[in-house]
Amino acid sequence: MKRLTSRDIELAHKRISRYINRTPVLNSRAINSIASAEIFFKCENFQKVGAFKYRGATNAMIELMESERPKAVATHSSGNHAQALALAANKQGIPAYIVMPSNSPKVKVNAVKQYGAEITFCEPNLEARESTLNTIVDRTNAVFIHPYNRNDIIAGQGTACFELVEEIDDLDMIIAPVGGGGLLSGTAIYAKSKGIAVYGAEPKSADDAKKSIEAKRLIPSVSLNTICDGLLTSLGELNFHYIQKYVDDIWLSSDEDTLSAMRLIYERMKIVIEPSSAVALAAVLNNKEVLEGKKIGIIISGGNVDLDSFFNSYAK
Amino acid sequence: MKRLTSRDIELAHKRISRYINRTPVLNSRAINSIASAEIFFKCENFQKVGAFKYRGATNAMIELMESERPKAVATHSSGNHAQALALAANKQGIPAYIVMPSNSPKVKVNAVKQYGAEITFCEPNLEARESTLNTIVDRTNAVFIHPYNRNDIIAGQGTACFELVEEIDDLDMIIAPVGGGGLLSGTAIYAKSKGIAVYGAEPKSADDAKKSIEAKRLIPSVSLNTICDGLLTSLGELNFHYIQKYVDDIWLSSDEDTLSAMRLIYERMKIVIEPSSAVALAAVLNNKEVLEGKKIGIIISGGNVDLDSFFNSYAK
Repeated sequence: MKRLTSRDIELAHKRISRYINRTPVLNSRAINSIASAEIFFKCENFQKVGAFKYRGATNAMIELMESERPKAVATHSSGNHAQALALAANKQGIPAYIVMPSNSPKVKVNAVKQYGAEITFCEPNLEARESTLNTIVDRTNAVFIHPYNRNDIIAGQGTACFELVEEIDDLDMIIAPVGGGGLLSGTAIYAKSKGIAVYGAEPKSADDAKKSIEAKRLIPSVSLNTICDGLLTSLGELNFHYIQKYVDDIWLSSDEDTLSAMRLIYERMKIVIEPSSAVALAAVLNNKEVLEGKKIGIIISGGNVDLDSFFNSYAK
Repeated sequence: MKRLTSRDIELAHKRISRYINRTPVLNSRAINSIASAEIFFKCENFQKVGAFKYRGATNAMIELMESERPKAVATHSSGNHAQALALAANKQGIPAYIVMPSNSPKVKVNAVKQYGAEITFCEPNLEARESTLNTIVDRTNAVFIHPYNRNDIIAGQGTACFELVEEIDDLDMIIAPVGGGGLLSGTAIYAKSKGIAVYGAEPKSADDAKKSIEAKRLIPSVSLNTICDGLLTSLGELNFHYIQKYVDDIWLSSDEDTLSAMRLIYERMKIVIEPSSAVALAAVLNNKEVLEGKKIGIIISGGNVDLDSFFNSYAK
């Protein structure tokens, strides 16, 4: 199978740049002072659909339209990938079929609908998701777009790192959260080609990437218990290949530390991010001794967070 | 007494620009589509201390240092002005004495402390605040910096509008929230000099500006009941003068509508703003018929909001 290089990520960026938001790189003097380091946040919470996932979905869609020219695309997802694929397919003018668990948050269901995709609900377990998806693929001839275990998706996700490196010189390292591994593997392929160290950030209670690297084989995630709802999925095979090859280490953080880091970002930077994004700053704050004086890039993966409790507290 | 013109605001901008953040002007396709208008948000939530107040405090401090050269400054405030004056005085290297009600949120007390000001606590009522302040002024010879009823403060607050107009051509109108009136009067002086209409946005349940304009005399605020905690104060005399002269109208919104507008901004723009800022978008959404197709500037006044309920919901 073809292996991606940094050139593929540059090409992906050329391919998708007129469809995506060029997201800002922000920094905070207060957080730098707390971390005793210089941190640059690449803010994919400002990406379309509110997450980096739109980069990969867009790259996959355009590549497909230039090759297979599918009649439709399909995926199963309760989260950001569902919205990303729905919008990317919509922009390319072809139908998207999305399988969503019946307990998906209403706000995400509505977003997928709004982007014009057709939703099929299923029981909230992986088996039901896959069998429902297979039925739809058989019926519609749609191409299944896996959320992370594909080269076109990985190359797309790597474009956030490409933009960060283009904008900020001389980064010592880049840190990205790792769930399925799409973002981290794309980031690592590009950053390493520029001589920049790469670290993954993972919740302690969903540490399959850390374990897989240590064991040198894929160890599936068994956790259902972290506030980082985007990081529960197991690493993909392809993602594991790139991560083994290019990532220096995985840093683990407790949910408590992730929550403190998230709060710091809301209060000091005034931006809305999701818990899965905060795990990278938690990792930095947990490794202050090693990182003092370093120039660090962090990929803020997204900003799709459930704000009900916050707004309900006002409505009282 | 000297009356401000747009020239004073330009001079204030020159004076303070190297001390303040040049805040971004953001927009959202989703919100434009909901509003059927083109809205440009001048994001003072990204200003130092998290609010526009730092502009006025900085301008007042520098003007004072060039004229009276005070030994110290003082004010009473439980909110953004306390932090703004503390930091602005710190930057000019002179002491600041801040009187804060004993029930002030810990996070605000800590921020003021962190900026190096000396805090004196008092009973949480206006009488205690003023008498405590007078004692301090007598003892220290500090100059009292009122949070909004001063020309130097008003000119400073107007610089957010100056930057917005410099960046976005052909605005039909600019909307700013009104509490004491520092932001709205500064905005109005500058916007009107460029032929742009100006509206104030005020909570229905704290509508002293609307009532004062209708009655053509200052009617003090009596409300204590709005989620817009920054807009409870009564209009200042000087502010009322400029608002009467330059503001086209005041638009009222219910707290419920303000809350919906605030949620829209969090969810679609992924930025943290305070309720007092959302009242301006609520006004736009309540006046859609009149505003269709218009090019509208909104001053987002700040982002200092109590996030306890939000983060507590995760900690459970």
